[in-house]
Amino acid sequence: MTSPAPLAVVLVSGGLDSMVSAARAREDGFRVLALSIDYNQRHQVELAAARRIATMLGAERHIVLPLDLSAFGGSALTADIDVPKDGIGTEDGGGIPVTYVPARNTIFLSLALGWGEAMGARDLYIGVNALDYSGYPDCRPEFIAEFEKLAELATKAGVEGHPFKIHAPLQDMTKADIVREAARLGLDAGVSWSCYDPAPGSVHCGQCDSCRLRSKGFEDAGLPDPTVYAA
Amino acid sequence: MTSPAPLAVVLVSGGLDSMVSAARAREDGFRVLALSIDYNQRHQVELAAARRIATMLGAERHIVLPLDLSAFGGSALTADIDVPKDGIGTEDGGGIPVTYVPARNTIFLSLALGWGEAMGARDLYIGVNALDYSGYPDCRPEFIAEFEKLAELATKAGVEGHPFKIHAPLQDMTKADIVREAARLGLDAGVSWSCYDPAPGSVHCGQCDSCRLRSKGFEDAGLPDPTVYAA
Repeated sequence: MTSPAPLAVVLVSGGLDSMVSAARAREDGFRVLALSIDYNQRHQVELAAARRIATMLGAERHIVLPLDLSAFGGSALTADIDVPKDGIGTEDGGGIPVTYVPARNTIFLSLALGWGEAMGARDLYIGVNALDYSGYPDCRPEFIAEFEKLAELATKAGVEGHPFKIHAPLQDMTKADIVREAARLGLDAGVSWSCYDPAPGSVHCGQCDSCRLRSKGFEDAGLPDPTVYAA
Repeated sequence: MTSPAPLAVVLVSGGLDSMVSAARAREDGFRVLALSIDYNQRHQVELAAARRIATMLGAERHIVLPLDLSAFGGSALTADIDVPKDGIGTEDGGGIPVTYVPARNTIFLSLALGWGEAMGARDLYIGVNALDYSGYPDCRPEFIAEFEKLAELATKAGVEGHPFKIHAPLQDMTKADIVREAARLGLDAGVSWSCYDPAPGSVHCGQCDSCRLRSKGFEDAGLPDPTVYAA
């Protein structure tokens, strides 16, 4: 009799990156516990994509956890600030994009840690990548490494000698690399959702940062883009 | 013209410890942003206490954020596990109590960090203390220090050279010390709520860990206990 495969909590936003991250967790031999956060994001349609991804990858369980970060304000993704449509938008024309959600990945990884500990999982997956961490502080490799240290101190499991591993398998990938990786893993990229500011009919707007990066990723990878863009 | 006092986000559970922690933030010269988490705890009555405390201390704002951690399971405080009534309960008679909520303080501090960053606050307060950290890993001083490091890496504010300070003013206090500190600060301890498993009529049960510690704290401090206990 073989013991069942170990569990991993995978943060699944519904985007292409998290879809590939989840597929990597499965490839690494884990049973997937998919965790999505309904943080009252403008782009609620991405949660529908998260559900499709969890089903497609045969996730053991999928929790969509409501957590209304718009109560805090401070981001174009949750507050009434326009999502930029003319290139990566920052407050001052450089630095960190206005679509940055304060402490988002710290919050999301903490929640993954809580569920992971409760379920006896010791592995957490997050789909941050090289492109993200050029703009968002909580996507950088040093942040991920530091969170792993914190997780060991923070938990009963860590204290008892079963520390957590934070996997960021896309860490050094560009969007084109991720598009190629999706193809290698046999994933239908059309199932995922990237747009920050969906056009009517739940179509990718084609103009926000996220749509631009997605579209350019397929172009750079030289692979067909299954996405329908409004413009 | 003087500039307004700086803001601090204070985690206010509604318990005695968080009440004293919040009063210390005020004494330290901060305007208080009170944050309470409605995590579907058995003891919802503590949220009413949190509201009274925020009002009593003249908090600038108070957010009660719903976050249903019972979806994760794994704790007597959120799941269908009996709250121990015969002394500090642990799974194996030693170590970490069953009332431990996996990664709770990591999750709560992350949320405080997110709100703090959005509001331009650089100071976060949490009421952990010596008694807590003998049992809960995420109450230990080394955990608090590590979270402060993470906060610097995790945020736009940290990256831009405005790191966060995590205040744990009760860190080295016993419950008796905290009771005395409440008296020194002129606080009505009767406003706070400690019981994990309230008796009918929203009365402290008098038997759970938290009631025992509260009651003993007043006894050890030699101060009158305003709490009404069922037993």
